[in-house]
Amino acid sequence: MKVLVIGANGRVGSLLINRLAAQHQVLAGSRNPNSENVVDNVEHVFIDLLSDVDTIAESMNGVDAIYFVSGSRGKNLLQIDLHGAIKTMQAAEKAGVKRYIMLSSVFALQPERWKESFPSSLTDYNIAKHYADLYLTTQAQLDYTILQPGALKEEAGTGKIETNVTSPGTNSIANVVDTLVAILENHSTIGKVILMHDGNTLIDKALNQLG
Amino acid sequence: MKVLVIGANGRVGSLLINRLAAQHQVLAGSRNPNSENVVDNVEHVFIDLLSDVDTIAESMNGVDAIYFVSGSRGKNLLQIDLHGAIKTMQAAEKAGVKRYIMLSSVFALQPERWKESFPSSLTDYNIAKHYADLYLTTQAQLDYTILQPGALKEEAGTGKIETNVTSPGTNSIANVVDTLVAILENHSTIGKVILMHDGNTLIDKALNQLG
Repeated sequence: MKVLVIGANGRVGSLLINRLAAQHQVLAGSRNPNSENVVDNVEHVFIDLLSDVDTIAESMNGVDAIYFVSGSRGKNLLQIDLHGAIKTMQAAEKAGVKRYIMLSSVFALQPERWKESFPSSLTDYNIAKHYADLYLTTQAQLDYTILQPGALKEEAGTGKIETNVTSPGTNSIANVVDTLVAILENHSTIGKVILMHDGNTLIDKALNQLG
Repeated sequence: MKVLVIGANGRVGSLLINRLAAQHQVLAGSRNPNSENVVDNVEHVFIDLLSDVDTIAESMNGVDAIYFVSGSRGKNLLQIDLHGAIKTMQAAEKAGVKRYIMLSSVFALQPERWKESFPSSLTDYNIAKHYADLYLTTQAQLDYTILQPGALKEEAGTGKIETNVTSPGTNSIANVVDTLVAILENHSTIGKVILMHDGNTLIDKALNQLG
C-alpha cells in the first residue's frame, strides 16, 4: 500500500514511518524533510497544516491510507490540532482516500472524564482533540480508526497493551506505533475509537477483542 | 417570554438585556452581576462557561429562549468561544429549551473566505466560532438562529441592515442588538444562518427577505 503519514517528524511519526516502510511505500508528510531519518521506501512529501484543503489534497494523490500523528504540542492548538486535522480529513475526502487513522488522546470524546483524569493545563489540548475526533466520527465520510492512548513515554515497547481502558495509564511510544501499524491491516478496527494503554495482551489479540 | 442572555456584561449583552427587558423577563447570565446596569425585568443568574453541562443547565430552568453573546476576546478561545458555547447548547437540550440564538461572526461557516476577508490574527477566533456554529447546525437538536455580523462599531444604530452579505462590512452594535431582538419574534429565522452588516433595509424587512 501507499501510506501517507502526516506529522512524520514527530516522536510517533518518525518511528511510525520506519515501521511502515518494512511493508509499505511510505510518504513522510511534513513541512521539512528529515535528513536524519532516511529509510528505503520512504519519500518526503510537503504538507503544511496551515494550507487550505485543496493544497493539502494535492499531497494525497494515489494514497491508500492516511495517518494523522501531528500535533503542535500546545503551541497552535486551534490551527494545527483542531482545524489542521479536520482539513486533512476534508482533503482525504477530496482526494478519494477512504482509510484514515487518527492518533488522538485518551478520553478525547468523553469531556466528563477530563477533570478527574488530567491537570487543567491539558484542557485546551483535550478540547482541540475532542472536536477533531467528533468531526471524524460524525461529519467525515471516511473509514476511520481513532487510537486514544494516554501519556506517551520514551520506553522500549513490549508488544502488549490493553484496550477499552477506563484510566489514562501510560504508553511506550513503540507500543502505540505498533498498534497504529496493526490497525492498518485489521479491517475490524474501521469505525472504532480505541482507548489504550500498555498492558498484558498482544496487540493483535487486543484489537480483535474490541467488540 | 423568559429569556436568558449568556454573556450579559459584554458590549452586545449589556445593550441586549436592556432592549429585551422592554418586552420580556430577562435573565442576565454572567459570572458577576453588573451593578451599573440595573433594569426592571432583569435578574442576574450565575453562569460560568468553564462549568460542566449539568451545572450550566441548572441556570436554564423555565427559560423559553437563550441568547449566546459571550466571547473571551481572544483570551480563552478554546474554553469559552468554542467549548463553552457548545456546552450551553448541550445544557439547553438537557433543560428542554428549544430556542437558541447565537451571535457569531461573518463567514464563520465559510473558511474559504477567511484569507481574503480578515487579517491572519483573526484565524484562531474564526476557527473557534466555526466549530461552535458547525456543532449548532449539525449536532445540536435546537431551534437555532445564527447571526453573523462583521466588525462591531460603537456607533448609533440606524435600524437598517443588509442580510445575505458577501463582504464583511461594519455593524453598529445597536443594529446587531436590534436584529437579535427581532430574530426572537420572527419564527421564519429558525434554522437559518444570517450574514449581515449595516445597510439600507429595515431590520424586519431584511429578516423576511432571507429566503
